[in-house]
Amino acid sequence: MKSIIKLSAILFSVICLSACGDKQQDSKQAATQQQTFEWKLVTSWPKNFPGLGRAPETFAKQVEKMSAGRLKIKVYGAGELVPGFEVFDTVSAGTAQMGHSGAYYWKGKIPAASFFAAVPFGMNATETNAWLQYGGGLELWQKLYKPFGIIPMVGGNSGLQFAGWFNKEINSIDDLSGLKMRIGGIGGEVMSRAGAVPINMPGGEIFSSLQSGALDASEWVGPYNDLSFGFYKAAKYYYSSGWQEPTATLEFLINEKAFAALPEDLQEIVKVATRAVNDDMLSEYTARNSSALKVLEEKHGVQVRTFPPEVMAKLKATTAQVIEEMAANEPSVAEVWSSYKAFYDDIRAYHKITEQAYLENRQ
Amino acid sequence: MKSIIKLSAILFSVICLSACGDKQQDSKQAATQQQTFEWKLVTSWPKNFPGLGRAPETFAKQVEKMSAGRLKIKVYGAGELVPGFEVFDTVSAGTAQMGHSGAYYWKGKIPAASFFAAVPFGMNATETNAWLQYGGGLELWQKLYKPFGIIPMVGGNSGLQFAGWFNKEINSIDDLSGLKMRIGGIGGEVMSRAGAVPINMPGGEIFSSLQSGALDASEWVGPYNDLSFGFYKAAKYYYSSGWQEPTATLEFLINEKAFAALPEDLQEIVKVATRAVNDDMLSEYTARNSSALKVLEEKHGVQVRTFPPEVMAKLKATTAQVIEEMAANEPSVAEVWSSYKAFYDDIRAYHKITEQAYLENRQ
Repeated sequence: MKSIIKLSAILFSVICLSACGDKQQDSKQAATQQQTFEWKLVTSWPKNFPGLGRAPETFAKQVEKMSAGRLKIKVYGAGELVPGFEVFDTVSAGTAQMGHSGAYYWKGKIPAASFFAAVPFGMNATETNAWLQYGGGLELWQKLYKPFGIIPMVGGNSGLQFAGWFNKEINSIDDLSGLKMRIGGIGGEVMSRAGAVPINMPGGEIFSSLQSGALDASEWVGPYNDLSFGFYKAAKYYYSSGWQEPTATLEFLINEKAFAALPEDLQEIVKVATRAVNDDMLSEYTARNSSALKVLEEKHGVQVRTFPPEVMAKLKATTAQVIEEMAANEPSVAEVWSSYKAFYDDIRAYHKITEQAYLENRQ
Repeated sequence: MKSIIKLSAILFSVICLSACGDKQQDSKQAATQQQTFEWKLVTSWPKNFPGLGRAPETFAKQVEKMSAGRLKIKVYGAGELVPGFEVFDTVSAGTAQMGHSGAYYWKGKIPAASFFAAVPFGMNATETNAWLQYGGGLELWQKLYKPFGIIPMVGGNSGLQFAGWFNKEINSIDDLSGLKMRIGGIGGEVMSRAGAVPINMPGGEIFSSLQSGALDASEWVGPYNDLSFGFYKAAKYYYSSGWQEPTATLEFLINEKAFAALPEDLQEIVKVATRAVNDDMLSEYTARNSSALKVLEEKHGVQVRTFPPEVMAKLKATTAQVIEEMAANEPSVAEVWSSYKAFYDDIRAYHKITEQAYLENRQ
């Protein structure tokens, strides 16, 4: 009997060498490749908000599908897990692994952040993308967020925004005097110096404030989003050619430690998916802004206007002043502005004889 | 001895029930998830050609990394596996699973194909992307390639191309008369009707033909690619604001059966990676065209010119004529043009008061 047990043990060992050994190795490999991650992604947008809010949802679906379910990302609208303006802190703390927002919301904490979202009289979407990916912009952005343990990645562009909704026509600089306008960021400071009264206000309060007269004017996004907010019922004139946001670049915020904990394939999936979202959002806004403006004009009788040249010239000169002061007061702004400005000077000259000349020629 | 063998057999069975049974299941699962695919991707560009040629290389690297090596794609330059103009047939036959090219090369086989690459006096990169993804363009493109067993996906944009290199100034329509110019596609037909002699010629022969006088002029891409070809040594004037290709949309061609054989996660990886390439290429061209033009002007003394308005007007009117004739002669062209034109009419009107007005205001 002893020998039987011995033989069986030997046989078992032999079998285990072939079968169980493989199995252990398979299991180990499978463990790495099949480890699942569940992430939270907090945003600054109402849940399923068109354009801005749809982008992180698309991103999450693509990542889950590409990873065969190994990286599941749950998207939270503003206020669902944390308020919209706490996205940065939440990702920094690691309470959520990811966020989707706009960098200008963090300018109180990081003065140079606005330059990664929108610069009045600055670069459009295509130019900003080029600066970020091939002009050193992304590296500067990463450097700014590094102390907070956050990796920024591109998260789409709204394209050129509209100057906003006004309850009176703007025919001269004097018409801006005392104008109560919902406008933030660098644009708000510029408006203030031009005589207006900039007011910060969440999107949800704009409509009633325009109706009650608490606001005389408000900028928001562009026709696609503005149509769904119904602003045409509360203000008569719609000013195009937004000077304050030639594009808004959106951002994905990723907690550095959470990202480092992912295997390489999932890291690459996240990175590539952010670029796909970046490609998609501008297409969506371009197509839908165009069709929404037709609805606003043809169905709702909205009157589209542009600021007269003297108003544009004043806003432009004031913008230059404000930015130079910001750069003089804060070294990190100076560093970012220096890179932005050098790239912008070249690309502006280039696009003047190419894109702009073409748009004029094709009319 | 018999009983020993019997016991061992039982023991083996028991072990196999626990170990080998699991192993079989693991193996099956692993087989699906770890089955590797090796694809060939043929292109119409010289190996590692800047911009156009780099895009499929980036794509292949991203796909391999995202799939943890389960989908390996080997990229072939033009002529390595098949000539550049045989990409379509090669993918259709399944000899290569993928291709990267420009749709206008297939206009002999598919008359409407040009509209998915470049339309003279047509939409720019942002507008074309919007039409493809949110205006029904991609569905029409898929329908055109379906009979050939090919799925088309976006593969990047070159941005606005330059009108080309000329060895004399173009001051009037008369200056085009008898001009031997390397230009193909719809642009070539337009040039022919304007009095020029369009010539088809591979990129590699342009330089010597300009030097020998076999060509008086040639369009190619834009400053980034044109600088590396050294055309500034062979022609004196560089005409910007290319009317013939307001953008060139590149394409990924995917063999339908090969795509269907991929598991869902790899299919999604391929799809998302094409969009990331689409995001990237325009940024690369935008940044590098801008810096290359500076080198051409400042270092090589290239003189940049634009066609006078009367020449532009003539080319534009002739383009409209050529396209209307194409649509009248061929139902598939009529279907595509009808979709393209409707989207274009709206977006042109929209961008006139937004992007174009902004570019003019920011100067």
